[in-house]
Amino acid sequence: MKTIAVILSGCGVYDGAEIHEATLSLYSIAKNGCTYKIFAPDINQHHVINHITGEEMNETRNVLVESARIARGAISPLSDFVAADFDGLLFPGGFGAAKNLSNWAFNGPEGTVNREVSDAINCIVGLKKPIGALCISPVLIAKVLGNIELTIGDDSGTVEGVEAAGAKHVNTTHGEVVIDQKHKIVTTPCYMLDATIDQIGEGAENVVKAMIKLM
Amino acid sequence: MKTIAVILSGCGVYDGAEIHEATLSLYSIAKNGCTYKIFAPDINQHHVINHITGEEMNETRNVLVESARIARGAISPLSDFVAADFDGLLFPGGFGAAKNLSNWAFNGPEGTVNREVSDAINCIVGLKKPIGALCISPVLIAKVLGNIELTIGDDSGTVEGVEAAGAKHVNTTHGEVVIDQKHKIVTTPCYMLDATIDQIGEGAENVVKAMIKLM
Repeated sequence: MKTIAVILSGCGVYDGAEIHEATLSLYSIAKNGCTYKIFAPDINQHHVINHITGEEMNETRNVLVESARIARGAISPLSDFVAADFDGLLFPGGFGAAKNLSNWAFNGPEGTVNREVSDAINCIVGLKKPIGALCISPVLIAKVLGNIELTIGDDSGTVEGVEAAGAKHVNTTHGEVVIDQKHKIVTTPCYMLDATIDQIGEGAENVVKAMIKLM
Repeated sequence: MKTIAVILSGCGVYDGAEIHEATLSLYSIAKNGCTYKIFAPDINQHHVINHITGEEMNETRNVLVESARIARGAISPLSDFVAADFDGLLFPGGFGAAKNLSNWAFNGPEGTVNREVSDAINCIVGLKKPIGALCISPVLIAKVLGNIELTIGDDSGTVEGVEAAGAKHVNTTHGEVVIDQKHKIVTTPCYMLDATIDQIGEGAENVVKAMIKLM
């Protein structure tokens, strides 16, 4: 049975992992006969956002501890990740990818990616195993690998950013995936577009199916 | 288009709504051609649990604010719920149903249900509209309505509890639903059993399909 490592960035679209994208990725992995293991970095979130008002809350939360809510406790610190143990790597989206796994939300293509995250990406690519990335998380792959083909949907500001990071961007709509055959990178826009939850399910499933074909 | 009201109890299995059950319920509603509106009571959680260690954290979180993470901000206080506006009502599971929407986790069938929750259940039943309940949340319906037929899976302690509350329990396994035709109550065990996420998707979908047939 193929096993996919899933890296989360918290629990909630505005300061962590997007919950629908994360859950529907796990669901697609299981539904397509694979299994998963979930990781997150053991670091504090950049901040905590009240998801009703959009305002910052005077709290501190840990990315690993909050990601465990999506994982139902079955989660490991990203420092324990060993690329050889897995057949692929998947990043759901959410602002956590751009605020906790990297500082893209603040510094764009000039910013940096968390070292454990960039190590995981480089190691999986070095072993010629596929990476899936939903929503905003393709910016992580662009920042680490540079010259790859990907999609983040059609948001012009973010497109300019990934192109500045060296990537070639392809505009897409709901459920469509872009596959960089050379680096085995599979991307889809999900909530980077104004989407419904069934469209997120379609995007997640198409990414997982494409990853399985690349294994 | 049919609209289902979904009541959440926080964000995370051990102190709030079970995230997979909540997300896959919303997904099933959309996939089956319906739409949803999400509610939660504007009250503090009973407590906050670290989902890695299972230990209580020295924090206070609000059920409505945390539920908004699953709802991506599109949520209303349960005090705004009007039964006439909806075609059905759905409760995902998670300990939040037994700790925040009621005190079943501490007092079992001797306990009480949050007044806004019991009002919502009574009003929907009064209008002869269906209710779906996953995992542990059927205890809410048993406590409010008493003599109904339902399932919480096969956990003997919880079965004794719902029977003490006046309900007739039917043992079930993954994905199976029990339908109380008289009161239009649809239940399925989900994570009350040792389940995989694709089995949760199957249970949620079977509940939503049965609810639609009862509308």
